[in-house]
Amino acid sequence: MAVVVQNIERASLEIVDGLAACGVATVHEAQGRSGLMQSHMRPIYRGARIAGNAVTVSIAPADNWMIHVAVEQCREGDLVVVSPTSPCDAGYFGELLATSLKARGVRGLVIEAGCRDVRELEELGFPVWSKAISAQGTVKETLGSVNVPIVCAGAAVMPGDVIVADDDGVVVVERAKAEAVLSASRAREEKEKITRQHLQSGELGLDYYGMREKLAAKGLKYV
Amino acid sequence: MAVVVQNIERASLEIVDGLAACGVATVHEAQGRSGLMQSHMRPIYRGARIAGNAVTVSIAPADNWMIHVAVEQCREGDLVVVSPTSPCDAGYFGELLATSLKARGVRGLVIEAGCRDVRELEELGFPVWSKAISAQGTVKETLGSVNVPIVCAGAAVMPGDVIVADDDGVVVVERAKAEAVLSASRAREEKEKITRQHLQSGELGLDYYGMREKLAAKGLKYV
Amino acid sequence: MAVVVQNIERASLEIVDGLAACGVATVHEAQGRSGLMQSHMRPIYRGARIAGNAVTVSIAPADNWMIHVAVEQCREGDLVVVSPTSPCDAGYFGELLATSLKARGVRGLVIEAGCRDVRELEELGFPVWSKAISAQGTVKETLGSVNVPIVCAGAAVMPGDVIVADDDGVVVVERAKAEAVLSASRAREEKEKITRQHLQSGELGLDYYGMREKLAAKGLKYV
Amino acid sequence: MAVVVQNIERASLEIVDGLAACGVATVHEAQGRSGLMQSHMRPIYRGARIAGNAVTVSIAPADNWMIHVAVEQCREGDLVVVSPTSPCDAGYFGELLATSLKARGVRGLVIEAGCRDVRELEELGFPVWSKAISAQGTVKETLGSVNVPIVCAGAAVMPGDVIVADDDGVVVVERAKAEAVLSASRAREEKEKITRQHLQSGELGLDYYGMREKLAAKGLKYV
Amino acid sequence: MAVVVQNIERASLEIVDGLAACGVATVHEAQGRSGLMQSHMRPIYRGARIAGNAVTVSIAPADNWMIHVAVEQCREGDLVVVSPTSPCDAGYFGELLATSLKARGVRGLVIEAGCRDVRELEELGFPVWSKAISAQGTVKETLGSVNVPIVCAGAAVMPGDVIVADDDGVVVVERAKAEAVLSASRAREEKEKITRQHLQSGELGLDYYGMREKLAAKGLKYV
Amino acid sequence: MAVVVQNIERASLEIVDGLAACGVATVHEAQGRSGLMQSHMRPIYRGARIAGNAVTVSIAPADNWMIHVAVEQCREGDLVVVSPTSPCDAGYFGELLATSLKARGVRGLVIEAGCRDVRELEELGFPVWSKAISAQGTVKETLGSVNVPIVCAGAAVMPGDVIVADDDGVVVVERAKAEAVLSASRAREEKEKITRQHLQSGELGLDYYGMREKLAAKGLKYV
Repeated sequence: MAVVVQNIERASLEIVDGLAACGVATVHEAQGRSGLMQSHMRPIYRGARIAGNAVTVSIAPADNWMIHVAVEQCREGDLVVVSPTSPCDAGYFGELLATSLKARGVRGLVIEAGCRDVRELEELGFPVWSKAISAQGTVKETLGSVNVPIVCAGAAVMPGDVIVADDDGVVVVERAKAEAVLSASRAREEKEKITRQHLQSGELGLDYYGMREKLAAKGLKYV
Repeated sequence: MAVVVQNIERASLEIVDGLAACGVATVHEAQGRSGLMQSHMRPIYRGARIAGNAVTVSIAPADNWMIHVAVEQCREGDLVVVSPTSPCDAGYFGELLATSLKARGVRGLVIEAGCRDVRELEELGFPVWSKAISAQGTVKETLGSVNVPIVCAGAAVMPGDVIVADDDGVVVVERAKAEAVLSASRAREEKEKITRQHLQSGELGLDYYGMREKLAAKGLKYV
Repeated sequence: MAVVVQNIERASLEIVDGLAACGVATVHEAQGRSGLMQSHMRPIYRGARIAGNAVTVSIAPADNWMIHVAVEQCREGDLVVVSPTSPCDAGYFGELLATSLKARGVRGLVIEAGCRDVRELEELGFPVWSKAISAQGTVKETLGSVNVPIVCAGAAVMPGDVIVADDDGVVVVERAKAEAVLSASRAREEKEKITRQHLQSGELGLDYYGMREKLAAKGLKYV
Repeated sequence: MAVVVQNIERASLEIVDGLAACGVATVHEAQGRSGLMQSHMRPIYRGARIAGNAVTVSIAPADNWMIHVAVEQCREGDLVVVSPTSPCDAGYFGELLATSLKARGVRGLVIEAGCRDVRELEELGFPVWSKAISAQGTVKETLGSVNVPIVCAGAAVMPGDVIVADDDGVVVVERAKAEAVLSASRAREEKEKITRQHLQSGELGLDYYGMREKLAAKGLKYV
Repeated sequence: MAVVVQNIERASLEIVDGLAACGVATVHEAQGRSGLMQSHMRPIYRGARIAGNAVTVSIAPADNWMIHVAVEQCREGDLVVVSPTSPCDAGYFGELLATSLKARGVRGLVIEAGCRDVRELEELGFPVWSKAISAQGTVKETLGSVNVPIVCAGAAVMPGDVIVADDDGVVVVERAKAEAVLSASRAREEKEKITRQHLQSGELGLDYYGMREKLAAKGLKYV
Repeated sequence: MAVVVQNIERASLEIVDGLAACGVATVHEAQGRSGLMQSHMRPIYRGARIAGNAVTVSIAPADNWMIHVAVEQCREGDLVVVSPTSPCDAGYFGELLATSLKARGVRGLVIEAGCRDVRELEELGFPVWSKAISAQGTVKETLGSVNVPIVCAGAAVMPGDVIVADDDGVVVVERAKAEAVLSASRAREEKEKITRQHLQSGELGLDYYGMREKLAAKGLKYV
């Protein structure tokens, strides 16, 4: 049952970086409003906007052993996604593990549980999205798995999926669709740029989007 | 049932600005500890302290159509207050809607639900108080109402009430009482200025407020 | 039942300051992973790392009278710990009480309830760890006790215990063990400094900590 | 500020009883999906389905004094609705107060806070909908008001509104609309009776409600 | 994007019924402690212990249209699993939909959202596991999908997986492994029957499971 | 650090049984409104009202090994109280452990975490108060302690304290005060019996408790 999958397919870093630049809200919309993690996943500090190829880690509650195991499986451009098999918000991750991941070019970590050393992680420039901040220590007693399908904060994650994370949250992009989602995201950005100019000039969305007839048809009354 | 009330009475911006300067905690105390929204309403970024005349929006869950409708009803000095008819923390509000509202002089938004594009909103200088930060998109399918009485985060809000919001939360001031509340708030500030000087000098509140006899009468023992 | 204990034993400020420098995560580990408050206790602003001798306050819900009483019992290097007898997240503490405490050399406050005036407290440089930020006012009607044993956020606190607080949370160190915990914390810091250098250089934790055999013995499979 | 309004208008008990028989879900739908309290309001025991004219009580947190005051304002067919000015889930209400209310013909109580003596209340046949069950005692120190407008669990309640409560939750019906809502509720029940027969016989809702074309028009694909 | 998959593979009802008889805790253990939904999924009434083949439904928040669509896809022995794309605890499901499902032999429903008509559902004998009980109505405006992979309460569910539900919660068994899990569950039951007899007679688990040496080796001290 | 204390002092079963008969709300009031656990501690089935001498267990998160160890320390009239060192709501306790405890005369269990096999526990007549119901399995890897001071659901518990639990929650009575608390509880029951008769007859609490003057003095207005 406890297994480490060593060779996973990844998206090209060009695609990954393109998705990072678009940000979570745009990517989420561009792929049809799917793949978003639940909103309790918050960045431990504000201002990071990253993407990476998912190395997934399924861990026992209050046991961070498999994160140590996962380090070896990481490479430049990866992003580690961790989910305990039972909810437990101890502080599974801190500055020493981040030092190891950073040395391998990992861009950040997403964990549906707790994180600690948040001041040091900000100084190190290693962003984490977590459910809690907790100094509570964990043990190294029970095996789990690396690079298997997991569910993290309500989203299914396959190893090698592209994870995009910023101040708005975390979204999962299926690897096979990443290139198409990037194109759709960029198209959306172009379209929004034009919309923004109209709205800045004071044009109403009611007019720009042509909503007035549909509202009237539904029966909206102005009094 | 779905209605947009177009003409509402508002407080003068002089009163509104005066209340903003006093801040939430002072205004809440000055009006007899009423009108405070629940503490899960948090600013998406720290440091804003604003007030505005309430344009209220009652929306269907996960549907932001009526916020688009509300834009047209806003003017300089307004503050939009949004409440879904059933709790649903999707991201109903983001940078494009904020661009529209800012173009009309709206000062901020209070929503008992989710908000997205928080980095862009901070860059734009458009503050939002919300229950969640979420990138989850919403639809435009179901009507709601603008400028009707709503309940937002446990507080009743009438269109045209004055809303004060800062890092401590959000408070609602009834329009008809706004001027009196401003006077009471300023009186409270004056009084606190003097108290602060006494306390800074090391004088004990026990003495300054004259609490010792009442404590003894209630039976407090020192051992 | 309502009592103010006036003379409590405290740890030396040298020990207190040493523990502050180590931080919550290190101190918590060094004393065997005990004494940590629950992770809902969050700093009202980021960046403070303090320690102090606990002056404990047991208060009635929504009643902050006993915090006023506690001020007189505080001295240089203290840290006030407040717990209501029934959960109620009103804003028991704000800038005026902080002014009094600061005038007596108190370093901060930990309260399993609400705090207000958070902007002013940050300007004042008086850090607070709380369960909520709320402007809701409280009354002064019901007695409580000062310097009695309390439970705060799941941790037992005795008057005179050393409290360490930073961005990771809050930990309680028994006064009698404070010196030993400081030694253990410093030893841990020394050890981590060396570990950090190994990990920065790219050495894997799997090798540095010698985990590979134990993982194999437990049955971990690489595929 | 602290006031007891002694004469309020009430709906006739015939209407009240009619609404009770329809139940919360039907009444809520019949009045256009409004007035529902939040779903954290749960019955302390299952099986009660009641309605009553609202006697509203605004209380200080952890202080049940005004419930004692409210008893005198109650009459046959009333239902007491209690909301603290700041969230605090102590046990404000128990068997002795219920004995008093029952002696006056009150049908039940709705409180956005805690309740105790739940076994005794079930034996007494006095149903309560609350946010929590808690034995925590409260004080009698701070005034509040009786029969003023309040917000309870996200719903605005005016004195004399009709409150309907059952295992599905609690809904508020404005007094002036109660008769019309009763008619609409009964019409809905009639309609559902027929629908139920069709569905029991195995007819699909897709056909009975005529949904297939609309689904196809929206683009639903069967594969 | 919106799709109804009409032909899914199912487990035999013999296996399904066997798993129901074992119950959630046993099945969860027998398949290696995987597949359990989060503990906020609770039965609307106590005492049901069922299993069924999953018909999955992905719905828009506060929109129950696709549950109506799913009815047609159900057959004897199925169990409907519903998850909204964004958390929203309205009452998507009630007695009329249950009547339709029951007419087709469906055994129950699992929904990570709200349910209403709970008294009527209990009378009907149609069990539901939900996150909330809420009378809040929903709309029929936005498409979703039937029989696609979903995540429900933290567990990945494929159409045709076997769902087991009782008072302990809900567990998902992959269809391909259902037979093997049934065998392991029955073996576990046999083993527990013998263990139970030993423990009932007063034999200590410490002795029966042979734990004393391992405890001593880990360093447990008796004082 | 991991220790089993074998000889603890207990209250006499006469006192324990007397406190059980009084129930949680009465005992909590009689000892001055202290010792109550937080209201998230709920019985897994309704109707039990018990008391017992506390055998305390401090466990690692998601690890139930020490409950097995604790069984041997239990005797007739005990009640086991379990608290994990970090919050984790797995199902640490089920029917087999209950069988062992029942064989030794233990009356029930209080755990600030999860419990499973709730149907079987009700059939067995072994009541549990817990924070969650969860089938999630736990491991046996990490030591903890038996009969040391713990904090459970916000209440400090010493081994040998008397625990009272019923549908209203759980309260802790210090062993040394148990006899006095029993006397005070019985006196309170006597007093309430008389009060109840007055209230049943329709006498108002306002008159019976003599509240009218105090209310008037505080400024209550009747309009």
